Amino acid sequence: MSSQLENTLKVAHQAFEHFRHGLATGEWQGFLDMLTEDFTFWFPMGKFHGLNVGKERASEFFQYVCESFSGGLTVTLDHWTSNETTVVFEFRDEGALLGQPYKNRIAVSFDVRDDKICRYREYFGSDGKSY
Amino acid sequence: MSSQLENTLKVAHQAFEHFRHGLATGEWQGFLDMLTEDFTFWFPMGKFHGLNVGKERASEFFQYVCESFSGGLTVTLDHWTSNETTVVFEFRDEGALLGQPYKNRIAVSFDVRDDKICRYREYFGSDGKSY
Repeated sequence: MSSQLENTLKVAHQAFEHFRHGLATGEWQGFLDMLTEDFTFWFPMGKFHGLNVGKERASEFFQYVCESFSGGLTVTLDHWTSNETTVVFEFRDEGALLGQPYKNRIAVSFDVRDDKICRYREYFGSDGKSY
Repeated sequence: MSSQLENTLKVAHQAFEHFRHGLATGEWQGFLDMLTEDFTFWFPMGKFHGLNVGKERASEFFQYVCESFSGGLTVTLDHWTSNETTVVFEFRDEGALLGQPYKNRIAVSFDVRDDKICRYREYFGSDGKSY
């Protein structure tokens, strides 16, 4: 395994653990600390649909996630795949969205630069009601 | 690179080229020939939402795709990542859905067994109108 691939895996898995912690608890600082200054993310739908630029925008987004899923989301990681710059995590999450039962399948693709995440892309595999 | 990883990459890329050809032309036989008898796929929404079991069901699904996108879809592959059993392709597609302009972002995760695809999971990264 090349040292770049090793680093990418290490950084992406650390970031994913912070991401999972954020979803579970609403505490996002650990994840935010792992983002580059020029971080961007793509979200599939709703108020944050499309390309979102900057850490401040990310912070607003996670605040919105906290408000929407105030009881937190439980994540079950099913698969992860990688190349030298990117790791894709496929997982299921479960909780309550504005008080209603919520379940989804997600793929999230983290691009790594040095020891940070510089971009991610999120994809939805279900409808929020089943997985 | 292990020989299993090499084989997984080779088979998944062959399958993806058949998948891309199917989306472009409506000709799905090449892709169907690469599926195991116990093939399953997960689709995010609509008539085929959820887990779909068997090659016959896959054949029905691709017939439905042909009818929905009768002019074909053009695929732009942006990223792929892998492990020893799975390759995830992130791509954008563009065409017309029942005559209306259509654009989407997709992640599709192919699980390989020997020289075939035994499962895939599809995820949507946008709303069918932009990417």
